[in-house]
Amino acid sequence: MSETRAAMASKILNGIEKYEPQVKAFTSYDPVRIRQDADMASPGPLLGMSVGVKDIIDTVHYPTSHGSPIYAGYHSLSDAACVTQLKTAGAVCVGKTVTTEFAFFSPGPTVNPYDVARTPGGSSSGSAAAVAVGMVDIGLASQTAASLTRPASYCGIVGFKPSYGRYAAAGIKSLAPSFDTLGTMTRDVATAALADGVLKGPTAVPSTFKPRRPSSIGICRTPHWDAAEEATQKAIEKAGVLFSEEVQVTYIDLEDFAEAADLHITIMSYEAAQALGWEYADRRPLLSSQIVGLLEAGKQIDYATYRAALARAEELRCLMADIFANYDVLVAPAAPGEAPLAESGTGSPLFSRLWTLLRLPTVTLPGLTSSSGLPVGVQLLSAYGTDEDLLNWAGWAETILPPRPLPSMCI
Amino acid sequence: MSETRAAMASKILNGIEKYEPQVKAFTSYDPVRIRQDADMASPGPLLGMSVGVKDIIDTVHYPTSHGSPIYAGYHSLSDAACVTQLKTAGAVCVGKTVTTEFAFFSPGPTVNPYDVARTPGGSSSGSAAAVAVGMVDIGLASQTAASLTRPASYCGIVGFKPSYGRYAAAGIKSLAPSFDTLGTMTRDVATAALADGVLKGPTAVPSTFKPRRPSSIGICRTPHWDAAEEATQKAIEKAGVLFSEEVQVTYIDLEDFAEAADLHITIMSYEAAQALGWEYADRRPLLSSQIVGLLEAGKQIDYATYRAALARAEELRCLMADIFANYDVLVAPAAPGEAPLAESGTGSPLFSRLWTLLRLPTVTLPGLTSSSGLPVGVQLLSAYGTDEDLLNWAGWAETILPPRPLPSMCI
Repeated sequence: MSETRAAMASKILNGIEKYEPQVKAFTSYDPVRIRQDADMASPGPLLGMSVGVKDIIDTVHYPTSHGSPIYAGYHSLSDAACVTQLKTAGAVCVGKTVTTEFAFFSPGPTVNPYDVARTPGGSSSGSAAAVAVGMVDIGLASQTAASLTRPASYCGIVGFKPSYGRYAAAGIKSLAPSFDTLGTMTRDVATAALADGVLKGPTAVPSTFKPRRPSSIGICRTPHWDAAEEATQKAIEKAGVLFSEEVQVTYIDLEDFAEAADLHITIMSYEAAQALGWEYADRRPLLSSQIVGLLEAGKQIDYATYRAALARAEELRCLMADIFANYDVLVAPAAPGEAPLAESGTGSPLFSRLWTLLRLPTVTLPGLTSSSGLPVGVQLLSAYGTDEDLLNWAGWAETILPPRPLPSMCI
Repeated sequence: MSETRAAMASKILNGIEKYEPQVKAFTSYDPVRIRQDADMASPGPLLGMSVGVKDIIDTVHYPTSHGSPIYAGYHSLSDAACVTQLKTAGAVCVGKTVTTEFAFFSPGPTVNPYDVARTPGGSSSGSAAAVAVGMVDIGLASQTAASLTRPASYCGIVGFKPSYGRYAAAGIKSLAPSFDTLGTMTRDVATAALADGVLKGPTAVPSTFKPRRPSSIGICRTPHWDAAEEATQKAIEKAGVLFSEEVQVTYIDLEDFAEAADLHITIMSYEAAQALGWEYADRRPLLSSQIVGLLEAGKQIDYATYRAALARAEELRCLMADIFANYDVLVAPAAPGEAPLAESGTGSPLFSRLWTLLRLPTVTLPGLTSSSGLPVGVQLLSAYGTDEDLLNWAGWAETILPPRPLPSMCI
């Protein structure tokens, strides 16, 4: 084992030893395998990077439980496409990270590294917390409603949900295929861009990351501004002020998109009731009441209503494309506020339903905080398919926002 | 066990006993389970119907091998969404049907029931042959290039590939997610419509099938007419003559869409190289040279080329939507000709690449034959999302075309 590779394994294992007992980010990891994988890591663009894999993503060497007792101990025969891509590019897979049940609401044991009484957000809870404390460099995460943006905001990290369809979904448990999107969590935008070069195609390509100022920014309070807590309202206002020192900034509300959240719920419920049809039909006693509620709501929706929602969503996507003729970047709330206390759940998805419905790429940036010092993310969005541009613009915005505060347990 | 249900199991088992030794349509079936499932069948709209499940679709009770030694004996923990939907609606799952390797080209053992020296077509080989001889009423099939339309044509049955995304894909092995489409094979359009009411949503709804004459038909020779053999050219001409007795018929060639086949190959290769990334990286010696060739071609394509192909495909979809302003239905070749001899493979996908790229619903109808008496299908297409209309129009066309000839082994 080369010195670097031995150091890599030790760094990973030290991080786990130090933080995992408190943070509970992993459903499984194996020190022997970590050493072996670090020793055998391919000489690719991700050599030296460690990865946490959300536990709805198939892996040969670790069980994939989908956050459900139905799949406890389940081993897939193959790795998901994204896992193969990362490994082939040199990354070491550290283990599987906690997800809520089927990437919906029922939480796992992971705590928020900034305040262990609070939720890390869901559904990509374990990846967010593991990245926040440095146990992994890249957390694989996914979003069907708000499952990437919200935990990134709560855990003070960078969350990149690419344009719908950019990363391969093969080997990832489906919740609502019209929305399911794989993305990454990292501590800086450069690492997200590095991973993007690996995940966007069958052959890894170098990162083209080059931070760049956008020519115009729209500060988008969204139709749900009244549901934003003071911490989020202030974060968006602060970001607007900071960005306006270098770029032309305009305020827009997108009131015309108020229906998007309901359309999202209709489509997600209908599709989830199919995607999890077997679990509902054959394993219902092992499902949480939350997921049963989602599936039963989906079963009540008729096909015409579902099709109408899909058609309206497509119209809204066209309307949004027009809006991006005026702005390179939109800045919007990433979550209603700071991370809530764990007993109240994993937080509201309201501020992401619109963007998930529209299939837009989004980068959540850390740096701002609530009055109690907890992270409050700021979300940057750009036109569908302009992912490289968005990463470059986010690289600029990252330099304008304050640096991310470290969790107290890391100081 | 009620008399009907006992009769159901006996009918299935008699069919298997009579035809399976010759046809080799199944990778697995279990008489004990068939009796048990028939006994327990739900009282739904598919009660009394038997189903064969293509072996890229997950089933709890039968292994799912994807036509590859890599997955020999592999048991999924759950049923695919479509399997749960069919069972919940009362259908009896008879077993798993032969697919080519990962729904690509390398053939399985199934023979064409009309001439055992010929291919049944691929990749949905077993479902097509099992439906043709009556071993099952509904064959689950899928199409990424021509994997449903072509075997339906070669085996003299009805093949329904719905609009892309209409049926749930959860639990089905992915080859190229931009195209992968679940569909059905049946012996008449009414049964396809009955299954459609079950597969299009989380709650089964009754069939709305009502055969209806379209107001206009375009006979579409496609840009590949020169590649059509005499049998196919004559079948399309014959269909045109028959339909023109009741409906206004126009001849169109769609030369503007000549690039579609290449776009389809680019997108499919790029996506397959990701979807089957693990198999290539970790199990390459167990892959056929055909699939390795596909994946390595995909690895050579850069992201910009792939994105440009996706964008052009979207433009072609818009162009096609305009064409359907003039025609209810297009009639096109389903395959280059009659089923070729088995040693030459499973036939060319050329005549389906365009329609798969465009994501259109298509019904392949039997009834016409080559000079040697083998089935030659005729494909009916309509605008994206008009699946119910297409089934109704196909129900009319079915009455205009000659009745499907039975395979000689069934007489």
